[in-house]
Amino acid sequence: MIQLAFRQNVLDHGWVELHSVMGNDLTIVNAARQSFGQTSTDMGEKEKGLINFLMRERHGTPFEMVVFTFNIKLPIFVMREWVRHRIASINEYSGRYSKMIEDYYIPKDSKIRSQTGKPGAYRFEPVGTFKAKAVQKFMAAVSSVCWNSYEILLKMGIAKEVARMILPVNFYTQITWTINLRSLLNFINLRSADTAMWEIQEYSRAVEWIIHQQIPVTYDSFLKNKRVAP
Amino acid sequence: MIQLAFRQNVLDHGWVELHSVMGNDLTIVNAARQSFGQTSTDMGEKEKGLINFLMRERHGTPFEMVVFTFNIKLPIFVMREWVRHRIASINEYSGRYSKMIEDYYIPKDSKIRSQTGKPGAYRFEPVGTFKAKAVQKFMAAVSSVCWNSYEILLKMGIAKEVARMILPVNFYTQITWTINLRSLLNFINLRSADTAMWEIQEYSRAVEWIIHQQIPVTYDSFLKNKRVAP
Amino acid sequence: MIQLAFRQNVLDHGWVELHSVMGNDLTIVNAARQSFGQTSTDMGEKEKGLINFLMRERHGTPFEMVVFTFNIKLPIFVMREWVRHRIASINEYSGRYSKMIEDYYIPKDSKIRSQTGKPGAYRFEPVGTFKAKAVQKFMAAVSSVCWNSYEILLKMGIAKEVARMILPVNFYTQITWTINLRSLLNFINLRSADTAMWEIQEYSRAVEWIIHQQIPVTYDSFLKNKRVAP
Amino acid sequence: MIQLAFRQNVLDHGWVELHSVMGNDLTIVNAARQSFGQTSTDMGEKEKGLINFLMRERHGTPFEMVVFTFNIKLPIFVMREWVRHRIASINEYSGRYSKMIEDYYIPKDSKIRSQTGKPGAYRFEPVGTFKAKAVQKFMAAVSSVCWNSYEILLKMGIAKEVARMILPVNFYTQITWTINLRSLLNFINLRSADTAMWEIQEYSRAVEWIIHQQIPVTYDSFLKNKRVAP
Repeated sequence: MIQLAFRQNVLDHGWVELHSVMGNDLTIVNAARQSFGQTSTDMGEKEKGLINFLMRERHGTPFEMVVFTFNIKLPIFVMREWVRHRIASINEYSGRYSKMIEDYYIPKDSKIRSQTGKPGAYRFEPVGTFKAKAVQKFMAAVSSVCWNSYEILLKMGIAKEVARMILPVNFYTQITWTINLRSLLNFINLRSADTAMWEIQEYSRAVEWIIHQQIPVTYDSFLKNKRVAP
Repeated sequence: MIQLAFRQNVLDHGWVELHSVMGNDLTIVNAARQSFGQTSTDMGEKEKGLINFLMRERHGTPFEMVVFTFNIKLPIFVMREWVRHRIASINEYSGRYSKMIEDYYIPKDSKIRSQTGKPGAYRFEPVGTFKAKAVQKFMAAVSSVCWNSYEILLKMGIAKEVARMILPVNFYTQITWTINLRSLLNFINLRSADTAMWEIQEYSRAVEWIIHQQIPVTYDSFLKNKRVAP
Repeated sequence: MIQLAFRQNVLDHGWVELHSVMGNDLTIVNAARQSFGQTSTDMGEKEKGLINFLMRERHGTPFEMVVFTFNIKLPIFVMREWVRHRIASINEYSGRYSKMIEDYYIPKDSKIRSQTGKPGAYRFEPVGTFKAKAVQKFMAAVSSVCWNSYEILLKMGIAKEVARMILPVNFYTQITWTINLRSLLNFINLRSADTAMWEIQEYSRAVEWIIHQQIPVTYDSFLKNKRVAP
Repeated sequence: MIQLAFRQNVLDHGWVELHSVMGNDLTIVNAARQSFGQTSTDMGEKEKGLINFLMRERHGTPFEMVVFTFNIKLPIFVMREWVRHRIASINEYSGRYSKMIEDYYIPKDSKIRSQTGKPGAYRFEPVGTFKAKAVQKFMAAVSSVCWNSYEILLKMGIAKEVARMILPVNFYTQITWTINLRSLLNFINLRSADTAMWEIQEYSRAVEWIIHQQIPVTYDSFLKNKRVAP
């Protein structure tokens, strides 16, 4: 079922879901053709060539005419990187208005990792299954203590915005995210990179998988251009 | 024919045309409901109340989830104000790549105006039909001289980007414009105001007419809120 | 010592410190006078009148010519609201690169609060000293457990970016923040409001106190204009 | 006199003038060091290495902490490209409020050029001194007719905003421009390129000359990085 591609599960409790999209490859071509007072109705070789040209020469504005909205469930520590992409619109689940979600992220065995090397050139390596299992249990125990404490505070009548202060950044939140294709390709370029934190890489790959089906020609061009956004 | 509303003629040779739209009133409601982890499927009284609340309290981000693309033909001097709205995406017809369009703007009788008063409080008044006719002819004559000179330069083999330097700012250009609803309401608030230049007011009113049909509840709310954007 | 005003302590371990500033009231006047090809060298009545006019009529761009940089120490849950102001530049202390800071926020007695009413119209009231003391101890105990667990994970050789996942959002972080005066007045308008979370109000008031000394005329004008940013 | 470098004449009547600057190379280093909770007081080899690293890896935000304000006099057709750089603040001389400036741009001999080839790969070549002289005289004559017509309309009592409609885009305007270093390096990268319009290249080179003295280490790093902005 092709529909499935529009929702990707990520990490242990997260997901990325395409909510809506405005425009496609042809929209980009016609925005660029505005400069010449021309319009195309089909994606032929000329149109593909134009998209390659725009990508390579970094004529970015035509790519801003395609806009995506996603619903995303992600841990707070991932959200803290996500929100740094300023050319985008976000609405987030509010811990002031609503009870937080009882889901927290625990890395799988192979992602319980050690860190060596210097900033910008860290190497991360799995610590081994035995140690990983112990760490997972430990992290889950702490997360669970925090959640229970949160519920106790709520039961004591403490305001949600105060009670949630003791919830760790591995707890999940949810957002609606609207972003144009130019800004999104920049997000994917940066957040799919090896040096990015593994967990946000996973989200970036989910986003990439979903959108590449919407703008296949642009995506090919992005890959040819070494994944540098226009 | 309802379709007609999506294209509005403006001034003597200009127009505004809705190219595409993503989202509607319900999109705004559901983006805001993200904060509560809830979803609405119909626009009832509760949903209307929520939009009024968001508008009044200036919770602006949910309005960013609705996005419009327009094609617009407008004089360069109007474009020079238009482009100052930075939270938007523009592709413009290029006088470097293409021969300019042989259309220039001449104000109608009642808009050949005099200016009195101080900056921020100018009064503009029609100069009277007789004088207006003379001014129109004069402006048209100068515009025509410029266009002919432009064509002469092109025939002499001069680059388009050099030849166009002598075209006045009343010549028309064309753009594709993508903008979210929050930024658009701010545009309408500023550019429909009495103190705005009359010609951009006309464009602003055309945009307003087109979009109010797409987001009727939000538009009502905008009017109630004294046309202040959220 | 006038110098003291440039650093304000906020909450139990936080602070706001002015790092540098470009421009002052006169900068705003002269940016606006650009429209007339004029320059002022002193702040007289005319200049004050111009600033009032710009503020009231929401001619915002001249206020963008004054730029501030701050260093700020704040809890993560405050940072999560802070970062939503997109027209600004931020560098943040990194929990991937560095060991986190061992400071966490516990509200003072009068700010251990209950929450009643509906979203947008919540009332927050102190729960009383006796209960507050208990809640403070409880929150401190949980925070302390989390910090100790974080240190254990680090000692086990787990990567910083994994270990910090179990630190709650009441832990402190640090940022460098550059923002222009127009965007900053909008920040202050929204974050000093009664409906804002109390903790971010405190930061907003600290910022307000620091900057009002730098741009006294603009600040007066902001107050006269009911604290609506231009 | 070192002072001279802060004002560069451009084209026949234009100039770029540095008005103020906030920050320097060390500001960038310390913004980046925020991530590690460290501070530098001198630019040593380590600091240079850090700037190179930030530039190469496109960690752009530290470069946003340095901000420049310029005063610039430039032809309208150059301004029309300039204003497309959205991450910046502009105040412009207003043809609605003030009488326009009686200066227009005529390219020098070697820049009266022909255009061959395809979009994105145009070649521009001088047309020869004899033809160039004729074109210059012709362009000046048309510009002069437009200016005289503008003055006639003003004398007839026509509003400035109407009268100026017949002024060509080679007339000069003036702006105040505030922009951070990251956005400015992007401007320079795009507008100093061979494919950019020659006239804006000239302005870009003037800006480049002025700023390279303010942030010498960053500028070296920019050159090493093939002039790609971080």
